[in-house]
Amino acid sequence: MTKITGIIAEFNPFHKGHEYLLNQIDGPKIVAMSGNWMQRGEPAIFDKWTRAEMALSCGADLVVELPVTVSVQAADFFASGAVDILKNLGITDLAFGSESAIDYNEIADIYETKETEMESFIKALPEQLSYPEKTQMMWQHFTGIKFDGNTPNHVLALAYAKAAAGKNINLQAIKRVGKFHSTKLTEGFASATALRQSLFSLTERKNLLTEQTHQSVSQKPAILDLSAIKNHVPSVILETYASPKTNWAAYFPLLQYKIRLDDHLENIFQVNQELSVRLKNAVKSAKNFDELVELVYTKRYTKARVRRLLTYILLNIPKEFNLPKEIHILGFSKAGQEILAQNRGKIISKIGQKPWDELTQKADEIYQLGNVDFKEQNFGRKPIIKREK
Amino acid sequence: MTKITGIIAEFNPFHKGHEYLLNQIDGPKIVAMSGNWMQRGEPAIFDKWTRAEMALSCGADLVVELPVTVSVQAADFFASGAVDILKNLGITDLAFGSESAIDYNEIADIYETKETEMESFIKALPEQLSYPEKTQMMWQHFTGIKFDGNTPNHVLALAYAKAAAGKNINLQAIKRVGKFHSTKLTEGFASATALRQSLFSLTERKNLLTEQTHQSVSQKPAILDLSAIKNHVPSVILETYASPKTNWAAYFPLLQYKIRLDDHLENIFQVNQELSVRLKNAVKSAKNFDELVELVYTKRYTKARVRRLLTYILLNIPKEFNLPKEIHILGFSKAGQEILAQNRGKIISKIGQKPWDELTQKADEIYQLGNVDFKEQNFGRKPIIKREK
Repeated sequence: MTKITGIIAEFNPFHKGHEYLLNQIDGPKIVAMSGNWMQRGEPAIFDKWTRAEMALSCGADLVVELPVTVSVQAADFFASGAVDILKNLGITDLAFGSESAIDYNEIADIYETKETEMESFIKALPEQLSYPEKTQMMWQHFTGIKFDGNTPNHVLALAYAKAAAGKNINLQAIKRVGKFHSTKLTEGFASATALRQSLFSLTERKNLLTEQTHQSVSQKPAILDLSAIKNHVPSVILETYASPKTNWAAYFPLLQYKIRLDDHLENIFQVNQELSVRLKNAVKSAKNFDELVELVYTKRYTKARVRRLLTYILLNIPKEFNLPKEIHILGFSKAGQEILAQNRGKIISKIGQKPWDELTQKADEIYQLGNVDFKEQNFGRKPIIKREK
Repeated sequence: MTKITGIIAEFNPFHKGHEYLLNQIDGPKIVAMSGNWMQRGEPAIFDKWTRAEMALSCGADLVVELPVTVSVQAADFFASGAVDILKNLGITDLAFGSESAIDYNEIADIYETKETEMESFIKALPEQLSYPEKTQMMWQHFTGIKFDGNTPNHVLALAYAKAAAGKNINLQAIKRVGKFHSTKLTEGFASATALRQSLFSLTERKNLLTEQTHQSVSQKPAILDLSAIKNHVPSVILETYASPKTNWAAYFPLLQYKIRLDDHLENIFQVNQELSVRLKNAVKSAKNFDELVELVYTKRYTKARVRRLLTYILLNIPKEFNLPKEIHILGFSKAGQEILAQNRGKIISKIGQKPWDELTQKADEIYQLGNVDFKEQNFGRKPIIKREK
């Protein structure tokens, strides 16, 4: 069986750490990439087409889209939704970055053997613990793995191990060399977070990060000096960084409106009556998105969870939904095209009158409101075809 | 029976023409004033409390609020909703400005006698005519009244005559002397429309009227030079003109979001399937509120009607609603207080946990989003008491 490697990613935005990861992998690489809404409950800085193009330019062979109901989820569901899509496309391997050097295949084997016990263990833990805390306790108890609290990729990698357990997928952790998660642009390679912060502060801090600006990103023509970030970004895609971008500031007025207007927030995915009441109160005083999160989060409802809840509210995600059966293609190389040829019938390459996934398409319509320069995200858009050198 | 005069008004904003009208009337004057949303389908430039204060300062004795389901309606329903409230408070007279010198009491008598015939006449007219066109044909046919197309107050006055017919209310048309509807600030007395335009162009044209700014009005500190308008505004209220203000530009992003998000626009008051489809298409290209109206209106769906529809959508007004039974008081003078004493049990002077009118209160919450400096509009607010000299 030919080796085909899957990678689960957001590329928000794509940076040298991502390029390094792709370069470590032999053979064709399929990326299951989040669309326009991110796992931590926020809009992507660049739209999904821009980010897919970045990935193709830097070594990905096929980029497929995670529906919004997979991409905006806590680690476990995010991982299992993404792994299912990749497995469906025939991956033999799953590669991911991690701060840890452990063999995740062993972890997956333990989970495969003891799944019932491990899940019961989690259920028996006290209610007031957050889900991430419970999960870490489970891993410590059954595998002896320790967490030092600063290993985000390791946490996600464990979720991948769980999701891949029993699916005959070889797990390939790629230990990062050098400093790929720098929060500064002055040393090592900047993290995606540092890059996003930098991109907004470079040109548009006033427009976007000032409290309650209500201002669309594109108001000021982007005279973006990219030299400050050029050491952190693969040079072939540096120009793409001048693409239209957005962040929560652009959507906050819409979120305020939605929370005030909707008398049945408890019908939204993962929102209960208690949260609904807290949100209705908090929205009266919160001046921006971060303030709203601060007012609503608790030990049990972590900030990441609250951000996701607020995303569900903005996007009107209902309590019940089905994941799309087909896989939406954002772009491919020649090698990617061969993989597609093996998967006819599973894929959708152009969304027309027949929708692919209504919730994702609605979420993309709302995403589009975050910058007047964003283009139509779905209807009639064709996959990006990578020009081979 | 003591003469008590009712006046139906928006005071958007209050100007010398309004002051003139109030000065022509003897005895106590009750104003039934629109709240924060106007008859032509737009937000009030100043909030209802500011406008009530303007009215009290210039001669009104009692200001009561029209619920949003009365204030944002075509002439007939607007008039009948307002007249019902005023009649309930015991008015003997109804005063209004008009371009015409006819005796509206005669008109009311004709309508009282021939109501059935006249309404049947309207129903029999061709569907493609707009409702205002049909109404004018009816009046021409039964009363011989002519319309020259530029008599907005006359059209509204006829609606008042219809609404007051058979209710034992004396109709007192006040013919305006001088030029009270000037569209310029250089001659005569400016109309409310001219004043609104002037107020926005004075300080905030760029913020508010530029396409798609998404910007809250209060971003720029209002360094408002009021000298340009001071000849058009009663001097006692000139300062009030520096109050926080808004217009459709502040709500357009919310409207875009609502139209894109809501898959059942046809559940909104007066929206049908055909309009819903047209709106969903138009919102994809309209860059501002006026463009959206331009794209959607037809001969039958006039611009005023489309603006009201868009207001219903923004405010989520359902197809079925009840008008509130109680009357909400915005402010009163000493004479107004005596009228209130005669009307105990009908009035609500402070909205607390028990709502007055849920749709109006929701509409006010949304109105508040149009300027960060707007205060809470209902909960706990007490009526303004006019300080007597």
